Amino acid sequence: MENGTMNMEIPTNVTIKGILGTLMASIDEQKNKKRVISLGMGDPTAYSCFTTNDNVQDSVVETLESQKFNGYSPTVGLLQTRKAISEYLSLNLPYKLVEDDVYITAGCSQAIEVAISILARPNANILVPKPGFPIYELCAAFRNVEIRHFDLLPDKGWEVDLEAIDALSDQNTVAIVIINPGNPCGNVYSYQHLKKIAEAAKKHKILVIADEVYGHLAFGENPFVPMGVFGSMVPVLTLGSLSKRWLVPGWRLGWLVTTDPNGIFKNAKTVERMKKYFDICGGPATFIQAAVPRILKDTKEVFFTKTLCILKQTSDICFKKITEIPCFTCPQKPQGAMAVMVKLNVSLLKDISDDIDFCFQASKRRIRDTPSRSYSGSKKLGSHNFCCRTIFS
Amino acid sequence: MENGTMNMEIPTNVTIKGILGTLMASIDEQKNKKRVISLGMGDPTAYSCFTTNDNVQDSVVETLESQKFNGYSPTVGLLQTRKAISEYLSLNLPYKLVEDDVYITAGCSQAIEVAISILARPNANILVPKPGFPIYELCAAFRNVEIRHFDLLPDKGWEVDLEAIDALSDQNTVAIVIINPGNPCGNVYSYQHLKKIAEAAKKHKILVIADEVYGHLAFGENPFVPMGVFGSMVPVLTLGSLSKRWLVPGWRLGWLVTTDPNGIFKNAKTVERMKKYFDICGGPATFIQAAVPRILKDTKEVFFTKTLCILKQTSDICFKKITEIPCFTCPQKPQGAMAVMVKLNVSLLKDISDDIDFCFQASKRRIRDTPSRSYSGSKKLGSHNFCCRTIFS
Ligand SMILES: Cc1ncc(COP(=O)(O)O)c(C=O)c1O
Ligand SMILES: Cc1ncc(COP(=O)(O)O)c(C=O)c1O
Repeated sequence: MENGTMNMEIPTNVTIKGILGTLMASIDEQKNKKRVISLGMGDPTAYSCFTTNDNVQDSVVETLESQKFNGYSPTVGLLQTRKAISEYLSLNLPYKLVEDDVYITAGCSQAIEVAISILARPNANILVPKPGFPIYELCAAFRNVEIRHFDLLPDKGWEVDLEAIDALSDQNTVAIVIINPGNPCGNVYSYQHLKKIAEAAKKHKILVIADEVYGHLAFGENPFVPMGVFGSMVPVLTLGSLSKRWLVPGWRLGWLVTTDPNGIFKNAKTVERMKKYFDICGGPATFIQAAVPRILKDTKEVFFTKTLCILKQTSDICFKKITEIPCFTCPQKPQGAMAVMVKLNVSLLKDISDDIDFCFQASKRRIRDTPSRSYSGSKKLGSHNFCCRTIFS
Repeated sequence: MENGTMNMEIPTNVTIKGILGTLMASIDEQKNKKRVISLGMGDPTAYSCFTTNDNVQDSVVETLESQKFNGYSPTVGLLQTRKAISEYLSLNLPYKLVEDDVYITAGCSQAIEVAISILARPNANILVPKPGFPIYELCAAFRNVEIRHFDLLPDKGWEVDLEAIDALSDQNTVAIVIINPGNPCGNVYSYQHLKKIAEAAKKHKILVIADEVYGHLAFGENPFVPMGVFGSMVPVLTLGSLSKRWLVPGWRLGWLVTTDPNGIFKNAKTVERMKKYFDICGGPATFIQAAVPRILKDTKEVFFTKTLCILKQTSDICFKKITEIPCFTCPQKPQGAMAVMVKLNVSLLKDISDDIDFCFQASKRRIRDTPSRSYSGSKKLGSHNFCCRTIFS
C-alpha cells in the first residue's frame, strides 16, 4: 500500500480511475513493448466496435447550430428534456411519470452525488452492494453518510443477500442501492427478485436508489425490469444516463428521477431541497440537453440490438478465456452491463497476498490482460470489463 | 420572508437563480401584460446582440463529428485542453504556465466549488467581497468553511477595503476571493490596487482566489490585469471559463489554474488532493473540451472588440437611465463585466423596508425593469445587469 493512490487522505477509498491511472502510467514508464489493454474502464467508446448512432450525433449538431441553446439552462434541466426522459422511462412502467419527476445531471455519476447529498443527515446510513461501484463510497464519505455493505451472492447469480438487508437496517437507514444491470458483476435481476428487494425496502421504510445506468443492456436470460415498476410499493430514485446505452459517456448527460407515484418521498420539502441542491451543482451543456428529445425519439431499435449482440459475443469470449486461466474462476456468466466478476485464487500464486498486490505485480511483470479493477471492500475479487479489442478481435 | 425560496433549510443563503425564478414565476402567474425583462441573470445569450463567433461553434461541431471524443476524458481534463489554456493565460503573465497547472471544470461555478472544497479544513475561514457572488457563500456553507466579508468601497471604485483584510485575517484564514472584472459592481482594478491586495495576502500567508470569469471584459479606464501577474509574490488560484468572453455560458467549460510559479501552494500533497477531488466530481463534455484549443487559437480580436463595444454602449445607457430614477443612485459607472450596482434609497419609498421587500413588491406591482438581484449580506443594495434589450434598443 505504499503506492501514491493508496495512501491519500480523506476519503479513504480509492477510485477505479485512480488505480487505473497508476497502473497504466507505471506500464508506460517501463516502455513496455507488449500492447496493454485496460480492462478496467467502463468506456465502450475506446473500441471501434462501439460507436454511437449518426442520428444521435446529428441531434446535437442540430441544437448546437440552432444557436438557441448557448445560454444557461434552468438548474434542474431544460423542460423539454425532462419531459422527454419522463416519457421514455414511462414506457416501461405501470404509471406515467411527469417532467417534474426528472432532474437532469452531468452523467449518472452526478445523479449518484445528488442522491446521496439530499439523503445525508446526521447518523444516516445507506446500504450498498458488495461488490459495488466505488463512487457510492466516495460520495458518502464526502457527506458523512455511513456505508453498510450487503453481499451480492456469487452462487445465486449475484442476487442481493436479503437476510443481510434485515440485519443491517435500523432507524437511521435511509436507502438501499441496487445496480441493475450490474457493474461489476454483470447481473440482471428477475422481476421476482426485484420485487423481494422492494418488499424488504418497504418493510424497513427506506427508499431504493436504482442505478440503471446500464438499463436495457441485458443479453442473457432475464429481461431488464426497471425498479420503478415497484414504485407504488416503495419510493424509488431512478438514476440513469445516455452514457452506456447510447455509447456516449463523454457527453455527461444523465438523470435522477423520482419514480414515486404515491408521492411518499417527493413531498414539497424534499423537492425544495432537491431544487436547492441543483441551484449550486450545475448540469450538462444546454445544447446537449436540448438534443435529448430527438435522441430518445429517433434512435432505432436496430442500433440497440447491434450493441447487445456485440456485448453478448465479447462477454462469451471473455468468459471462456478467463475460465481457461488456472488462478481465475468466474462464478457467473454475465447477463448484462459491461463487466464480469473474476475470482482470484491467491493460493495458486507465489508471493502474492491479495488482488491489489496482484494488480501491481501484474503491471510490473507486464502480464497482458491484467485485472486492473479492484473494489474496496471486496478484497478477494477482481473484475474484468469485456468490451475490449484483444478479446473481440 | 415568507416566500418559498427564502425559508429553506441549510445553507441559509439564497441563490440569484432561486430569487429570480420566484420573481419571474410570480409575474407570469399574474398574466402580466407588460413585457418584463430580467436584469438579474448574467446570461448574455438571452439577447440577440450577444452571439458567439461561428468559428467557436464550428470547433465544437468538428470535434463532435470526429467521433473521437465521445468517451470519458481524464478527470482533470484532456491534456490538449489543459495545454491550450495554460498557453492562453501565459500570454498575459510574466512567467509560463504548464498543462499541469490547469484543471478543466464544468464552468467557473465548478471551479469555485473545487477551490473551496480543497481549501476546506476544520475552522478554516475565507475572506469574500461584499457585495459579491453568492455561490461562494453557498459552497462554503456546504463545506463548513466560515465566510468573512470585507467591504468593497463604493466611493473608491469598489476597491477592496484593505484595512478590513488586516482586521479579518487570522491563523485560520486560508484565502481571499477577488472578483475582477467584478460582478456585481462592474469594477476593473488597477495594477496598483491588485498589487496591494497581493501584498496583503502575502503578509497574512493566505492565497488569492482570483475569479476572472469576466477576464478581458474591461471597457473603462483600467485595462484588465490578471491576478496571476503577482503569482510570484503570493500563490493565486485563477478561475475562469468560456462563458462570458466567448458568450457560451451554457457550454459549461471552465478552468481552475494554479498560478503559482514558486510552487508555494501546489506541492505534491495539494496536487494529489486536487486530483482526487476531480476523480469524483466530473467535468464538461469531452468533445467540448477538445474544441478549446481551436477556439482559443482562432477567435479573432474583432469578435472581442465588438462585444466590448456593445457592453460599453449598454452600460452607458443603463447608467444614465438608472440615475434618472429618483430612488436609485449608482455610485460608480461600470468599467467591466456585465453588471452595475445600484443603491436603493428606501427612505424615498413608502411601505418598503429593504431591497428584498422592494423586489417582491416590484414584481407584484408589475414595475418594469425591477432590480431582481439581491445579494445576501448587502441588504441595502440591489443590482442591475445591463446587457438587456429594453435598454439597448
Ligand atoms: C454502476 C455505475 N453507475 C454510474 C456510472 C457513471 O455513469 P456516467 O458515465 O453516466 O456518469 C457508472 C459508470 O461506469 C457505473 O458503472
Ligand atoms: C463572479 C462570477 N463567478 C462565476 C460565475 C459562474 O460562471 P460559469 O457560468 O462559467 O459557471 C459567474 C456567473 O455569472 C460570476 O458572475
